[in-house]
Amino acid sequence: MTYEQDLERAGDILGQAQCVLILTHRAPDGDTLGSGFALCRALRKLGKKARVVCSDAFPKKYAYLWEGLSDDEFVPDLIVSSDIADTNLLGERLAQYAGRISLCIDHHPSNTHFAGFTLIDPKAAANCEVMCDIIRQLGVEIDKDIANCIYTGTATDTGCFRFSNTRAKTLRTAATMIECGAATADINKLLFETVSRNRLMAESMILSTLEYHCEGRAAFVTVSRETMDKAGVTEEDLEGVPSIPVRIEGVRIGVTFKEKETEVYKVSVRSCGGVNASALCAGFGGGGHMCAAGCTMTGTLEQVKKLMLAAAEKALG
Amino acid sequence: MTYEQDLERAGDILGQAQCVLILTHRAPDGDTLGSGFALCRALRKLGKKARVVCSDAFPKKYAYLWEGLSDDEFVPDLIVSSDIADTNLLGERLAQYAGRISLCIDHHPSNTHFAGFTLIDPKAAANCEVMCDIIRQLGVEIDKDIANCIYTGTATDTGCFRFSNTRAKTLRTAATMIECGAATADINKLLFETVSRNRLMAESMILSTLEYHCEGRAAFVTVSRETMDKAGVTEEDLEGVPSIPVRIEGVRIGVTFKEKETEVYKVSVRSCGGVNASALCAGFGGGGHMCAAGCTMTGTLEQVKKLMLAAAEKALG
Repeated sequence: MTYEQDLERAGDILGQAQCVLILTHRAPDGDTLGSGFALCRALRKLGKKARVVCSDAFPKKYAYLWEGLSDDEFVPDLIVSSDIADTNLLGERLAQYAGRISLCIDHHPSNTHFAGFTLIDPKAAANCEVMCDIIRQLGVEIDKDIANCIYTGTATDTGCFRFSNTRAKTLRTAATMIECGAATADINKLLFETVSRNRLMAESMILSTLEYHCEGRAAFVTVSRETMDKAGVTEEDLEGVPSIPVRIEGVRIGVTFKEKETEVYKVSVRSCGGVNASALCAGFGGGGHMCAAGCTMTGTLEQVKKLMLAAAEKALG
Repeated sequence: MTYEQDLERAGDILGQAQCVLILTHRAPDGDTLGSGFALCRALRKLGKKARVVCSDAFPKKYAYLWEGLSDDEFVPDLIVSSDIADTNLLGERLAQYAGRISLCIDHHPSNTHFAGFTLIDPKAAANCEVMCDIIRQLGVEIDKDIANCIYTGTATDTGCFRFSNTRAKTLRTAATMIECGAATADINKLLFETVSRNRLMAESMILSTLEYHCEGRAAFVTVSRETMDKAGVTEEDLEGVPSIPVRIEGVRIGVTFKEKETEVYKVSVRSCGGVNASALCAGFGGGGHMCAAGCTMTGTLEQVKKLMLAAAEKALG
C-alpha cells in the first residue's frame, strides 16, 4: 500500500469513529503532544468527541496546545496512538490500552506495528508531518490552534529545523502552519530561547570543569552531585548538556561524566568526524549510535577519566 | 510597479550584462555572501563573467560558498549590490563604486535607493529569498552549489529559522534548496552547532558575573577587558552575548556591560514583555529598537550598574 492509500484508510477509520481516545507517549514531548492535540482539535471540529491522555503529566510550557479545550468525558469507540513506536512507551497508566489500539499514527522507523492499522512515514522528521496529512485527509480546515500544535511538533523534533532529520516537507509543513496563523515567534521564544536560572547556573558550573585532551580532539566535562544540588537542577533540566563538548571547534569526542552515586558515573559520549561513539562505549559495556552513545563506569572520577582517555586516544588513532 | 514587474526588469538588466561585479557589504555575513555568490554562480551558468567583492576579507567558515569558483578578471559592464541598504555599508575599499551601482538587490526596509534600479522585498527575512526569485527569473536551474548559497542566507539571517522574521516564504525557499541538493545538515553544524574554545571560555567567564535584580526581572552581566584578554576573544567573537541575560526565565531586562576602556562601558540592553529598551537607553544618550538598544556610560562599573539599575527599576514600574 502506498502512503496515500494508508492515509485514506486512516481517514476512514477516524471518520467512522465518534468518541476517540488519543494516547501520547510517556515523558511527553512537543511532537507527541502537538500531534495528539492537533488530531483532538480536528476531530472536535468534525463534531466528534476526543481527548488526549498520557501516563505522565503534561509539561506546563506546552499549555497553549490544550488552551481552550474543554474536558470531554466518554467511553471511546476508537483508540489512537500518536508518535508511539512501541507499546512499552505507553507508560504505566496507559499500559491497559496496549492490546486495544486500532490506529497508530507514527514516524519512527523502529515502529513495532502493534496496532490494528499503522499509518507511518518513517522519513518524516516529526509525527506532526504525518498528522498534518491526516487532518487534511479528514477535510478539516487548519485553524490557528491546530497550526500551533502542528508547528510545535515539527520545531521540537528538529531543534527548530537545525537537525539533520529536517527535510523539505518538514519546512513546507511549518510554512503552511505560519500561513494558517501559528504564533511561531512566541512558540520559538518559549521553547528555544528561554532558559531557567538553575539550568544556566548549572551550565556555567559544568563549563568550568571543561578539559581538553588529545591535542584538543577530545573534551571532557563533569556533572557532580554537588553541582546539581547547588544549581538545584534535576536530570531533566540537564537535557542537551552531553552535546556541549562536541560542539567545540576541533573536538571529535565529547564526554560528559555525570555522577550517579559515589564512584559511579553515567558517561555520555558524543562524536563527529567519523569517530564511532557506540564502539567506544561498547568497550565499557555500553552502546548506542555512531555519534551518540553511553555507558556506566565505576571508580573515582580520576580513574574513569583515565580509562576513557585511553579509549578516546585509541579511537582517534 | 509590482514585485513581479521589478523582478522582470532586474532580470532584463542582468540578462543584458556580460561582465558583472557583485558588491557585498562590509563585515560580510552569510546573507550578503550567500546571495552574492548565488548570483555569481547563476550568471556564470549563463556564460557571463561575474565575481563577488567585499571591503573586508571573507570569513573562512563560509569557504564552501565560493568553493570551485575560478578567478574572473574583467572590466565590469554592470555593478550590482547584494544585501546593501546604504552606500555607507560598502566599506572603504568598495566606496569607489558608490555612484556606479546600476542594480541593487536587497531586503532591508531602510534601503536608501542609491542604485539605478532597486529590486527589494522588505518583507523577506533574507536577501537570499529575493536572490532566489531573480535566479529563477533568469531561467537558471538551481544546482547544489547555488542551493548551498541560498540556504546559507535564509538560515543565517533567521538564526536557523528561529527569529520572528521567519515567514512562510523563507521556509519554502529553504525547502526548495534541500530538494536542489543543499548540504543543510553540514551547513547547520558548521554555522549553528560549532563554537570556538575561546568563545566558550569567554561565555563561561561572563556567566560567572551574572547578577539578578528587581526580583529577577532584570539580569546584568559584565564583559571586562580582562575576560576578553584571558579568553583571547575579540568583539566579533562575542556576537550574541547581549542576548543571553534576557533569555533567562522571568527576565524582562537583560543588560550587558562591556568595558571599552577604563571607566567607559558599552552597554547593551535587551528587553521583552513590553519593556522599551530604546527609551531606557535614551536616558543615557543612546537608543535603538523596542527590544534591543544600547548606550555608552562612563564611571566605575559599580557606578554605571547603579545608574542602570535605577533606570531598570523605573522601566519595570
